[in-house]
Amino acid sequence: MNMTYKNIPGGVCAAKGFKAYGIHAGFRKNTAKLDLAMILADRVCNAAGVYTKNKVFAAPVGVTREHLKGGKARVVICNSGNANACTPDGYDTANACCKAVADMVGCAETEVIVSSTGVIGQSLPTEPLFNTLPALYASLEASENGADLAANAIMTTDTQKKELDISYEYAGKTISLGGMCKGSGMIHPNMGTMLGYITTDCSISSGMLQKALSAAIVDTFNMVSVDGDTSTNDTVCVMASGYAENEEITADGEAYDAFYGALLHLCTLMASAIAADGEGATKFLKCHVYGFSDKEGARVLAKSVIGSSLVKTAIFGSDANWGRVICALGYSGVDFDTAKVDIAFSSPAGTIDVCKDGAQLQFDEDIAKKILLEKDIVIECGMNCGSEEATALGCDLSYEYVHINGDYRS
Amino acid sequence: MNMTYKNIPGGVCAAKGFKAYGIHAGFRKNTAKLDLAMILADRVCNAAGVYTKNKVFAAPVGVTREHLKGGKARVVICNSGNANACTPDGYDTANACCKAVADMVGCAETEVIVSSTGVIGQSLPTEPLFNTLPALYASLEASENGADLAANAIMTTDTQKKELDISYEYAGKTISLGGMCKGSGMIHPNMGTMLGYITTDCSISSGMLQKALSAAIVDTFNMVSVDGDTSTNDTVCVMASGYAENEEITADGEAYDAFYGALLHLCTLMASAIAADGEGATKFLKCHVYGFSDKEGARVLAKSVIGSSLVKTAIFGSDANWGRVICALGYSGVDFDTAKVDIAFSSPAGTIDVCKDGAQLQFDEDIAKKILLEKDIVIECGMNCGSEEATALGCDLSYEYVHINGDYRS
Repeated sequence: MNMTYKNIPGGVCAAKGFKAYGIHAGFRKNTAKLDLAMILADRVCNAAGVYTKNKVFAAPVGVTREHLKGGKARVVICNSGNANACTPDGYDTANACCKAVADMVGCAETEVIVSSTGVIGQSLPTEPLFNTLPALYASLEASENGADLAANAIMTTDTQKKELDISYEYAGKTISLGGMCKGSGMIHPNMGTMLGYITTDCSISSGMLQKALSAAIVDTFNMVSVDGDTSTNDTVCVMASGYAENEEITADGEAYDAFYGALLHLCTLMASAIAADGEGATKFLKCHVYGFSDKEGARVLAKSVIGSSLVKTAIFGSDANWGRVICALGYSGVDFDTAKVDIAFSSPAGTIDVCKDGAQLQFDEDIAKKILLEKDIVIECGMNCGSEEATALGCDLSYEYVHINGDYRS
Repeated sequence: MNMTYKNIPGGVCAAKGFKAYGIHAGFRKNTAKLDLAMILADRVCNAAGVYTKNKVFAAPVGVTREHLKGGKARVVICNSGNANACTPDGYDTANACCKAVADMVGCAETEVIVSSTGVIGQSLPTEPLFNTLPALYASLEASENGADLAANAIMTTDTQKKELDISYEYAGKTISLGGMCKGSGMIHPNMGTMLGYITTDCSISSGMLQKALSAAIVDTFNMVSVDGDTSTNDTVCVMASGYAENEEITADGEAYDAFYGALLHLCTLMASAIAADGEGATKFLKCHVYGFSDKEGARVLAKSVIGSSLVKTAIFGSDANWGRVICALGYSGVDFDTAKVDIAFSSPAGTIDVCKDGAQLQFDEDIAKKILLEKDIVIECGMNCGSEEATALGCDLSYEYVHINGDYRS
């Protein structure tokens, strides 16, 4: 199916039936930084989520996973500045927040999606939320730019807020999807990789919504790597209000395919935004592995390259050091014929072939430099043994990454 | 067996029967940097080797692996500045070097151990070796400090040459072992992790020598991680001249155990020297996982922590961010009970407990800072479910790592 997606304004409020807002509640000392976001649906939504695969996961991840087993949600509450992970009272705190929010908006506790992001291992105080919840709730209605504020409030070391939104037409109905996400450190291919919230007015059952989300993350959020670390708090959730008034999607078919295509497109935009804003990133880096014998192998190969510190520093230095690329393919654990590998670097400034049949090609270093001085770099790895492909998303490794993470808690 | 090891001088010439030398042959442009090393045994030695597990391995690795299938070696030849990896003529070049060396010293080509280290993907010129081999060979005899020069010649981004040497007494004989190694980038737990050469005058069969080396690397070289990248050229070789005149070790038993203990001790010293001199390292970092249910699981957990970019940057910043430690344990893929994990940081300035039963402990940040400002840091992870332990070796991640690798080829 060839769909056309229209970019629309509104972030998580782009789809019908959602309000959002963000405030400074006091989880952070810096009063200029918003730290509490809410997304409220006008009515109970079908909902789905995917979560970190880290053995150590934060209390709000455990609580949200349990809540979404029912497939319903009404509201998202998310603080930044504290991860509510690895503390003795984590679950009590997360549950107390859910109860307060449920009481305020008038829904069941199990209809609350709760998330936290920030430092691990410090108890999350509840006062900031309790004290500011009435004001936050009151602000939802009047706000013109609530989605912006919400997207701002979930940022940690992100340098840009991330709001994406698209719509498509199907069977005479306009269906919209909006998303906001955060994440620039502790990002690695192993599930959600960060916090992401998607809202849609599509009418779709919880089961099909979960199916679509679980499939969409595989080649989007799961293909992002900033630093190889998988967070304790990763969560991606989607809520569907049904206000588009399309016939409810309850099974596979053309309508599902159309929705899935749109969701996949939105997730790709969101994952790219996260990769491009990786901690300390100066360049957005893709690794495209093509012509391989199986899909999963292509994914693993691409992720091995995008995760290599040596490849990332070479790209930071605009150095066409393709030896580090083939080396990273080599230690990925995937079997392939090294004598068939072709490697090229490309960017808006052009493409240069640097390796053919696993061995060096003569190439012009000045041209290579010019290509690699651009901000959007693609490493092309042709494996010449099939037709499967995969693309991993990441960024370079800069001095600034070290600076940001050398003293994050201060 | 409780053995006492004596530190002795001499590096790879500490054991009887070995000469060594290093020169500037011209593999590098900088004439002040030595780039060709030779270790020559007085007679044919029993020998053993272990090699990179990277699917992409350099030609000299393939050649040396083939040669050592015979279990015999007489001479090591190693250049720095060029890895002789991923070039169409790699094997021809490596074989030509072996032939020239064999002709010069009067041994079989299969008794030559050949290695290269440096940039991947550029053809290795043979002229530097052909032109300087006679002078190199002639210098072996007269030299007082040949082992030093050889250890210097194999360095790449290493800031210090690495020579280690010990002896022990057994059954009335003094048995010596000497080693030199290099490696500070592209270091990761998956085999040899770098170049290492060990010489000994112990009389031991090739089979038992291989057994001892293969076992010794598991908890030493394989537990080192600087940047998560596994090189195409990693090789560790050992040659045993037999000049100690002990009864030849041909089977398990007390004599083997004594030799194995000494080899393990030497490999630990060598691996620690590599970790401490990791590219851009300002601190030597160990992660000690103890009280775990199985040995291999303990190794994987320790390596996951030592390999985390976020842990490494936190240590660089002297920041007691233990949340990143438990997070790295969590994504290791090893199953454990998060509610039983204890974490402490220690250094010459003291020890501080920061996590108990998987949750935060109140601790004094000033004391933690003082401990982490030291150069030798140990992260202690108590898993409280058994008696197995493992230690991984690494270093912090600094601005200098990015600087070194941003433009390595220039």
